[in-house]
Amino acid sequence: MKECALGIDIGGTSAKLVLADRRMRALRRAAVPIDPRAPWREALGRIADGAAALLRGRGVVGIGVGCAGCVDASRGVLRFSPNLPRWRRVPCAEFLSARLGLPCVVDNDVNMMALGEQRHGAARGARNVCCVAIGTGVGGGLILDGKLHRGASMSAGELGHIPVEPDGIECPCGGRGCLERYVGKDGILRLARLAMWSEVVARFLVAGGLTPERLAAAARSGVPGARRAWEDAGRYLGLGLVGLVNLLNPDVIVVGAGARAAGGLLLGPARRVVRERALAIPARHVRI
Amino acid sequence: MKECALGIDIGGTSAKLVLADRRMRALRRAAVPIDPRAPWREALGRIADGAAALLRGRGVVGIGVGCAGCVDASRGVLRFSPNLPRWRRVPCAEFLSARLGLPCVVDNDVNMMALGEQRHGAARGARNVCCVAIGTGVGGGLILDGKLHRGASMSAGELGHIPVEPDGIECPCGGRGCLERYVGKDGILRLARLAMWSEVVARFLVAGGLTPERLAAAARSGVPGARRAWEDAGRYLGLGLVGLVNLLNPDVIVVGAGARAAGGLLLGPARRVVRERALAIPARHVRI
Repeated sequence: MKECALGIDIGGTSAKLVLADRRMRALRRAAVPIDPRAPWREALGRIADGAAALLRGRGVVGIGVGCAGCVDASRGVLRFSPNLPRWRRVPCAEFLSARLGLPCVVDNDVNMMALGEQRHGAARGARNVCCVAIGTGVGGGLILDGKLHRGASMSAGELGHIPVEPDGIECPCGGRGCLERYVGKDGILRLARLAMWSEVVARFLVAGGLTPERLAAAARSGVPGARRAWEDAGRYLGLGLVGLVNLLNPDVIVVGAGARAAGGLLLGPARRVVRERALAIPARHVRI
Repeated sequence: MKECALGIDIGGTSAKLVLADRRMRALRRAAVPIDPRAPWREALGRIADGAAALLRGRGVVGIGVGCAGCVDASRGVLRFSPNLPRWRRVPCAEFLSARLGLPCVVDNDVNMMALGEQRHGAARGARNVCCVAIGTGVGGGLILDGKLHRGASMSAGELGHIPVEPDGIECPCGGRGCLERYVGKDGILRLARLAMWSEVVARFLVAGGLTPERLAAAARSGVPGARRAWEDAGRYLGLGLVGLVNLLNPDVIVVGAGARAAGGLLLGPARRVVRERALAIPARHVRI
């Protein structure tokens, strides 16, 4: 039986599970919805059930878990997650390891992404890499001088909580005007509602349930308000990236996860802001 | 004859020279004004003359130069300085070494400050240190995981050019709403003029020539507009620090240089913004 490993990505609304072989090919996938208002034991129990079903009959060496939020990777504890307010000091590694009988490591999801991109992906071989993961929240992972930068208390990389608007909207993290409030899922939908309030088409879209995917399709088919919403979100993303570029002077910035649906709609304006506003030397060097 | 070393700090309006012994005690000091509109050869020539006068009769092992701006430390070249627009690709190390007959190393001024603070100063022994130097401009130096972080093209640490106001005032760097525009010398004086425009006392202060030092004295003696100006600048500084704390999770942030005149007037509001707005875990950990 082939040896494989299980990866679990715990996000703000669902957990994605993937069983992969040694060559990083996905063998099986599953998704488990997460109710952010449920106690963590209940939600993590469901994830463990989903994992058990996926593992059945396979020789698995271990489990790697990525969580949005502040993770103490040395102990496998999710300390705090802005989008799962009821998950505090959750011993993810211990819980899953006990339930599934397998070794388990837990880290911040975008730290995991940064390592993956640097070893196998878009930033292969680069020594200074910033990863931005856009989904329900906006996470960040930093590889500086070839190594994952965890910071003094293992909470570095929270790019989504860089302030981009001094008196901006409140954020569940306790801050205000955080990048996540403009570029995360709720943020972009809010910008869309603002941009399209006077248009009949907005009502049509909202009636069908406004999602980032539908908003991207609307923008591509030429709905001006939808275009403007992505333009606005892209500008805010660009402001965050200007800060990153000027502060850290990275080789590569990888923007991923939920952002894929939007692609150039979001990245176009973000790249333009970086080109226009970041310092010339690091801006010329960086690849986004 | 005792062995000593010469340190030169090239700022936006003057160069400060200090001759120090092996135990880091200052033996002699001098200052050379810099005309930012003059060609670099002329200005650097004057600095070399000042250095020669200071060195006379001393056994000096070498020269260390700190410059505001992007420095290629491996070759000792100042590539670009936002506050000295005519200094581009200036071979400082080669020029001074040839003129003074001594080995010379050149680095970003706040990188030098960060190393100094971590080895001998306020951040002794800390592994993750951010230095913020407030003067004509606002510079930054980062020590991450115990090592100076220079970035991919040696321009990391430009904390003064983190955007803190999305549609803020233009910056000579090409950006907009950079922290430096609100907390650097011109920035704070601009805030002061805004805060005091309707007050008779402003005219009195401006008549005497408005300087950060006079503005600090006015705030301490209770002039409300002056207080408000520092409060506003401190809030902007706080926003920049929130980004730093959330992104890098440092042990210590050292705020220094010209900021000393203002002290708590600037740091009080900045600390408050960090306490109120940064993520709880890194905010509790950091010492400012």
